[in-house]
Amino acid sequence: MSAPQPVEIWFEFASSYSYLAVMRVESAARAAGVTLHWRPFLLGPVFLSLGWNDSPFNIYPPKGRYMWRDMARLAAKYDIPFHLPSQFPRNGLLAARVARLGQDQPWIADFARAAMRANFGEDRDIGQPEVIVDILSALDLPAAQLIDAALAPANKLALRRQTEQAAERGIFGAPTLLVGDEMFWGNDRLEDALAWACRSE
Amino acid sequence: MSAPQPVEIWFEFASSYSYLAVMRVESAARAAGVTLHWRPFLLGPVFLSLGWNDSPFNIYPPKGRYMWRDMARLAAKYDIPFHLPSQFPRNGLLAARVARLGQDQPWIADFARAAMRANFGEDRDIGQPEVIVDILSALDLPAAQLIDAALAPANKLALRRQTEQAAERGIFGAPTLLVGDEMFWGNDRLEDALAWACRSE
Repeated sequence: MSAPQPVEIWFEFASSYSYLAVMRVESAARAAGVTLHWRPFLLGPVFLSLGWNDSPFNIYPPKGRYMWRDMARLAAKYDIPFHLPSQFPRNGLLAARVARLGQDQPWIADFARAAMRANFGEDRDIGQPEVIVDILSALDLPAAQLIDAALAPANKLALRRQTEQAAERGIFGAPTLLVGDEMFWGNDRLEDALAWACRSE
Repeated sequence: MSAPQPVEIWFEFASSYSYLAVMRVESAARAAGVTLHWRPFLLGPVFLSLGWNDSPFNIYPPKGRYMWRDMARLAAKYDIPFHLPSQFPRNGLLAARVARLGQDQPWIADFARAAMRANFGEDRDIGQPEVIVDILSALDLPAAQLIDAALAPANKLALRRQTEQAAERGIFGAPTLLVGDEMFWGNDRLEDALAWACRSE
């Protein structure tokens, strides 16, 4: 039996279904013995390339109404806190820059969950720098220093480049799980992606 | 313990994910002790109301490429035959009219599965009347008589009305499962819909 392949989770802090996947993925990957790589990116440019200048859940109201109901049901099923955000989508740029900075650091999973929960579980505006400062501080991380580093040109460029890579690899939504080039779109495919990573060739 | 609520499955013969749900729903409902109501409708008018004059899987090529890969994986997982259709979407109008005629008849499930399998498992053009005749005949049904009845003004109107009802009830895609007014969109939600129908109030 060969070792499982690593799994990349591509996610966006403004994305509702990314919230569910981000909250679940670390423990599910650990249970499956799968190494996880975090890949924050920005959905906005990807949506623009599809002709959308807003979330499709706002552009198509019946889909949006359904999505919020579905989110509430799934959050209850997974026992994840959920609070209908008073603003959607929120600006996830700063959170994504911090996550890009930390995507290979031991704190990435905790930060990703905390920022996602702030947006979709606590109705806090993650577009406000002070909210990101709060989140980092609550994790005992050096907030001011990390935000400075996140806003440095090299890190901003790294996030932009990662977003371009998402489109280059065929990603059109979030969350997306990649096992090599095998793509799994949506929180609904989390278990299938991990099973794919574990199958023997 | 109260009896489970009935579940309606709203589906379209041209819809790829409807294929997976239609193939699975009868046995899953039976296992759950849930009464099933079949509700064929036309996705075209619903998509037009969202501004799409084609399948979104054709309008957004990255979504389309992913969908076919996802279909192949899911069909393998469920052990359902799958053959990439040489035409998509196919014209499901005649099949939907026959299904509307028979939606409360004992043959509806067999017909729905056979016509869906012809499209997505056997690459046959269900838009051709002779293919529908073949399917009905193979089920030992009076094909010519049923097609005549399906094309009668009252039945054509009944399908048009059912399609309007789909939009009125908030349906924006297929398959959709309804438990009362509780909506579950997609083959992925089949199990959740049945569980909802069975939960005690």
